[in-house]
Amino acid sequence: MKVGIILGSSSDKDVMRNAGRVLDEFGIAWSAHIISAHRAPELLREQITKMEADGVGCFIAGAGLAAHLPGVIASLTTIPVVGVPLKAALDGMDSLLSIVQMPKGIPVATVGINNSSNAALLAVQFLYSSDNDLQNRMRQYRLEMKEKFTKDNKEGVKL
Amino acid sequence: MKVGIILGSSSDKDVMRNAGRVLDEFGIAWSAHIISAHRAPELLREQITKMEADGVGCFIAGAGLAAHLPGVIASLTTIPVVGVPLKAALDGMDSLLSIVQMPKGIPVATVGINNSSNAALLAVQFLYSSDNDLQNRMRQYRLEMKEKFTKDNKEGVKL
Amino acid sequence: MKVGIILGSSSDKDVMRNAGRVLDEFGIAWSAHIISAHRAPELLREQITKMEADGVGCFIAGAGLAAHLPGVIASLTTIPVVGVPLKAALDGMDSLLSIVQMPKGIPVATVGINNSSNAALLAVQFLYSSDNDLQNRMRQYRLEMKEKFTKDNKEGVKL
Amino acid sequence: MKVGIILGSSSDKDVMRNAGRVLDEFGIAWSAHIISAHRAPELLREQITKMEADGVGCFIAGAGLAAHLPGVIASLTTIPVVGVPLKAALDGMDSLLSIVQMPKGIPVATVGINNSSNAALLAVQFLYSSDNDLQNRMRQYRLEMKEKFTKDNKEGVKL
Amino acid sequence: MKVGIILGSSSDKDVMRNAGRVLDEFGIAWSAHIISAHRAPELLREQITKMEADGVGCFIAGAGLAAHLPGVIASLTTIPVVGVPLKAALDGMDSLLSIVQMPKGIPVATVGINNSSNAALLAVQFLYSSDNDLQNRMRQYRLEMKEKFTKDNKEGVKL
Amino acid sequence: MKVGIILGSSSDKDVMRNAGRVLDEFGIAWSAHIISAHRAPELLREQITKMEADGVGCFIAGAGLAAHLPGVIASLTTIPVVGVPLKAALDGMDSLLSIVQMPKGIPVATVGINNSSNAALLAVQFLYSSDNDLQNRMRQYRLEMKEKFTKDNKEGVKL
Amino acid sequence: MKVGIILGSSSDKDVMRNAGRVLDEFGIAWSAHIISAHRAPELLREQITKMEADGVGCFIAGAGLAAHLPGVIASLTTIPVVGVPLKAALDGMDSLLSIVQMPKGIPVATVGINNSSNAALLAVQFLYSSDNDLQNRMRQYRLEMKEKFTKDNKEGVKL
Amino acid sequence: MKVGIILGSSSDKDVMRNAGRVLDEFGIAWSAHIISAHRAPELLREQITKMEADGVGCFIAGAGLAAHLPGVIASLTTIPVVGVPLKAALDGMDSLLSIVQMPKGIPVATVGINNSSNAALLAVQFLYSSDNDLQNRMRQYRLEMKEKFTKDNKEGVKL
Repeated sequence: MKVGIILGSSSDKDVMRNAGRVLDEFGIAWSAHIISAHRAPELLREQITKMEADGVGCFIAGAGLAAHLPGVIASLTTIPVVGVPLKAALDGMDSLLSIVQMPKGIPVATVGINNSSNAALLAVQFLYSSDNDLQNRMRQYRLEMKEKFTKDNKEGVKL
Repeated sequence: MKVGIILGSSSDKDVMRNAGRVLDEFGIAWSAHIISAHRAPELLREQITKMEADGVGCFIAGAGLAAHLPGVIASLTTIPVVGVPLKAALDGMDSLLSIVQMPKGIPVATVGINNSSNAALLAVQFLYSSDNDLQNRMRQYRLEMKEKFTKDNKEGVKL
Repeated sequence: MKVGIILGSSSDKDVMRNAGRVLDEFGIAWSAHIISAHRAPELLREQITKMEADGVGCFIAGAGLAAHLPGVIASLTTIPVVGVPLKAALDGMDSLLSIVQMPKGIPVATVGINNSSNAALLAVQFLYSSDNDLQNRMRQYRLEMKEKFTKDNKEGVKL
Repeated sequence: MKVGIILGSSSDKDVMRNAGRVLDEFGIAWSAHIISAHRAPELLREQITKMEADGVGCFIAGAGLAAHLPGVIASLTTIPVVGVPLKAALDGMDSLLSIVQMPKGIPVATVGINNSSNAALLAVQFLYSSDNDLQNRMRQYRLEMKEKFTKDNKEGVKL
Repeated sequence: MKVGIILGSSSDKDVMRNAGRVLDEFGIAWSAHIISAHRAPELLREQITKMEADGVGCFIAGAGLAAHLPGVIASLTTIPVVGVPLKAALDGMDSLLSIVQMPKGIPVATVGINNSSNAALLAVQFLYSSDNDLQNRMRQYRLEMKEKFTKDNKEGVKL
Repeated sequence: MKVGIILGSSSDKDVMRNAGRVLDEFGIAWSAHIISAHRAPELLREQITKMEADGVGCFIAGAGLAAHLPGVIASLTTIPVVGVPLKAALDGMDSLLSIVQMPKGIPVATVGINNSSNAALLAVQFLYSSDNDLQNRMRQYRLEMKEKFTKDNKEGVKL
Repeated sequence: MKVGIILGSSSDKDVMRNAGRVLDEFGIAWSAHIISAHRAPELLREQITKMEADGVGCFIAGAGLAAHLPGVIASLTTIPVVGVPLKAALDGMDSLLSIVQMPKGIPVATVGINNSSNAALLAVQFLYSSDNDLQNRMRQYRLEMKEKFTKDNKEGVKL
Repeated sequence: MKVGIILGSSSDKDVMRNAGRVLDEFGIAWSAHIISAHRAPELLREQITKMEADGVGCFIAGAGLAAHLPGVIASLTTIPVVGVPLKAALDGMDSLLSIVQMPKGIPVATVGINNSSNAALLAVQFLYSSDNDLQNRMRQYRLEMKEKFTKDNKEGVKL
């Protein structure tokens, strides 16, 4: 199964790049598309349908300001959607609230402001109930993170 | 020309009622529909298309929480959309930001939190560049408001 | 019909320039004036009266801090007023609230922080109920935006 | 010299009453008027001019939401203006920012949300540089407050 | 696979009940436990380990104030964790930020304030990549929601 | 050693009562006084001096609004001061910021909004580096809290 | 009569300089002192007493963070105090709330964040009820401001 | 007794350095460790246990974003914990609320955003009830601070 990354605008590429990097670490195929929920709503519907048919098992959507993109995708599919609030104004608070405060029935799994790495990790988790190998890779990922952290910080640090 | 009032949920009727009252004062026809942008996106698209065909010249959309409804309507039509942020959580701040912070190209004319009366007045203004009679009625409305206010408050008030 | 752009201070020119550009795209005449609601209230009243007489059919007013300018203009005329909250302190939150939270009876059509482009698009919509040609131009504007967006983003994007 | 109390709406009477009570304690004459800056701008200008002629030496203005009233009064006179942010939405934060964030050149002396007592005390201070007796009364007021407080709280308190 | 619901305190039961109801609709087994991350950290670790062994495939954790519970659970397991910010102070903003702003590497899938229904729907999505039947039930759930909504709101509504 | 509890106003007694209850559980003597930093600054100075002489080893100060009381006490003594932000307006956010954002050199140990129980526990910790018995009591307190919690919540809970 | 300007720290000089410039324009004598309410409370008391004796008729106090300085001065004197919230963290919101939300009985006349010019204008107003000449100078100041503004902005502006 | 400084990430060293400097001034031994509560929870538990055994009498923990570190440490020990909210997003407001809003029973003594100096001073106060010499050094520290401040600011300052 693949992950579909949707960006609200081309200016979001720098922040969303980390999502791709994390998915690469897990060997999960992904593709990224720039689609505005407001400027090109038909394109969004077509693309979501096409990506579903292509085997996408989780969407990651990043957007700023009145960030409707993740919620609109969630209204178009029952594939899980992870939302990344991007910082474009108001320190990203407008985007966070526009994504996380979805009405009952249509959830978006929201991560921290600009935290596309965590969005990718959630995507891996959405995919892996069917995939023991992927589960093991996540355990390995966390173990390595912990071991690296522990090794790097075994000794006290000078301030 | 008519005004189409769209509510995100049936719990929004009490607040949105004032919009209807103000439109009645101006003798403007209106109809109201409850349509969730997320739970029934196809219904929303159909309804917007149908209302456009029926001669709706301005939409008023009220929604709370991650209030995508006004923005999604604006993405489906070039008819002007007035957004009313409704107070459902966080004193309505989530709704205000979700409505007002629209991206460049797709505006929503936003009014104050729960202020559906002002939404109706904006709708009147959206309709009336083509309608001298309506412009006169607005001048009259404001004049009466001012005169009533002035008469009511001519004398000082006891505290 | 023309659009009158009012700026609260000369430092607002950079942000408000986009409003002029968008109006130019629609072939709508406009003029811009710097008038402080607080430092020169009589000048504001005179100018608003003069612009009404000159055929202005919509005002766009941008202001920062305790941004009273759009609301004060709205109290002086029944011509529609679009308010642009400008970011001068507190990320523009003070300006947004000072503009959008108008009392019942005197609305200001508020757009996002610093989003003068959207203010211009609302102004076009305020003007066009009387103008089939303008309506067609808006449909064309949106269609071109959508087509350009779709063409630019047909292919997936590298991250 | 007298104090002019201006309320944005009749619903503000309960909160603004304390201003009158404090002025009474100081034996300062006052009158209160309800005048909306937006609904009746001419009435406001007339009233301010009339009150200036009647010997008003300080204005106290209370308003909620996009609370322009104190700032608009300040733009019409060089008599000092005390602004009271009233809590009508958003816990009064909209009103506080709309009052306190005035541009350079036109200040409003702002007090805490709903704190009309403190507004009256500032009004006394605005009046009293010319009035030794009033200064003495303020010293007496504070002394009595302190003595009463000290007497009431001499002993520890049970919790 | 089962879902483990963890509540930070017994006062959270009313809000978290909806999560159980939604899981029941999907025929997914669940159990709920009250465990404080701060008052009983060992109990939390033991319980998480035990629930993992018992076949829990997704955790839902609800907490208020400095809501560390979901993040602490996420640090103890690679099973996905859905966090529900509960409103206990500051309208739930403290809880939302304490849950959503997790550091890179340890995500929590966050839903809206008090929105435990959406948490349950995310849990279903976390479980169902391995379960075609569950996917079909979600499609059915959404279809029924949409059809019910459409039927209920076919006609315009009186205001 | 004793603890001195200072309240900014008599309306704070209900919230601050919990501090006394917790200190009683630890067998620590305490007394409570209502003293306004602003209305009776000399009384505050005298009381602080007197309480220091009486063997007070830690102050707990609760205050709302512009909550200067804890910081002013901290400026008068080198005895540790615990500050409790009380909710009187703006959900207590004004009070929290007025207490926690002290300048470098004069700290106040701040607890959560209205959380006077935690203030008392910090006071115990401030006293106990010199008191093995008190340290043991704290360990016991936490152990009992944990055991009670664990026992109460051993079984899963019905929702 | 003179104005006493008090700064909480030497880093506040740049912002507070404007207060001095405005007072110079009005020919009002002033002196500035750096005094921390927390680091040097006795010095503050002495200085305030000394400045009162020296003929200071109004204090202007600027402070950031938990900005207690203006309120503490107000507790020490019945001379009016103008508070300037300085931006040091949180965009100055902590400072604004710490200054404006004073308890009943001890007001601080608060101006906008970093707006020391307006603080000086309020100080002039506090001084001038006894001083016709000063009143005239204020009228002149405002008139010149208005005329300059009007002259500068007579013509429309290019964007 | 020693102080244990815990940093959530190596990027926090610059801000936390001041804590070490202040402890040095008081001649208090300290060591610093980087330990993530989420990435390495076992390491954190081991380190806290080890530091307790090594004679640490107070912990200082600095963390940003969803800053769970201080609260998690407080759940593992009865040694007092001082929390320093670090500014990483949202001006540090997320971190402040994640640290200060701890539940009843497990307090964290919170200082201002990025204010690690004050954290060190609180640590000194936590240690010194058993140490007359340390108390004297604190009195001396404050006295020198006051005297230096008084000497530096004896004369008025030019603006």
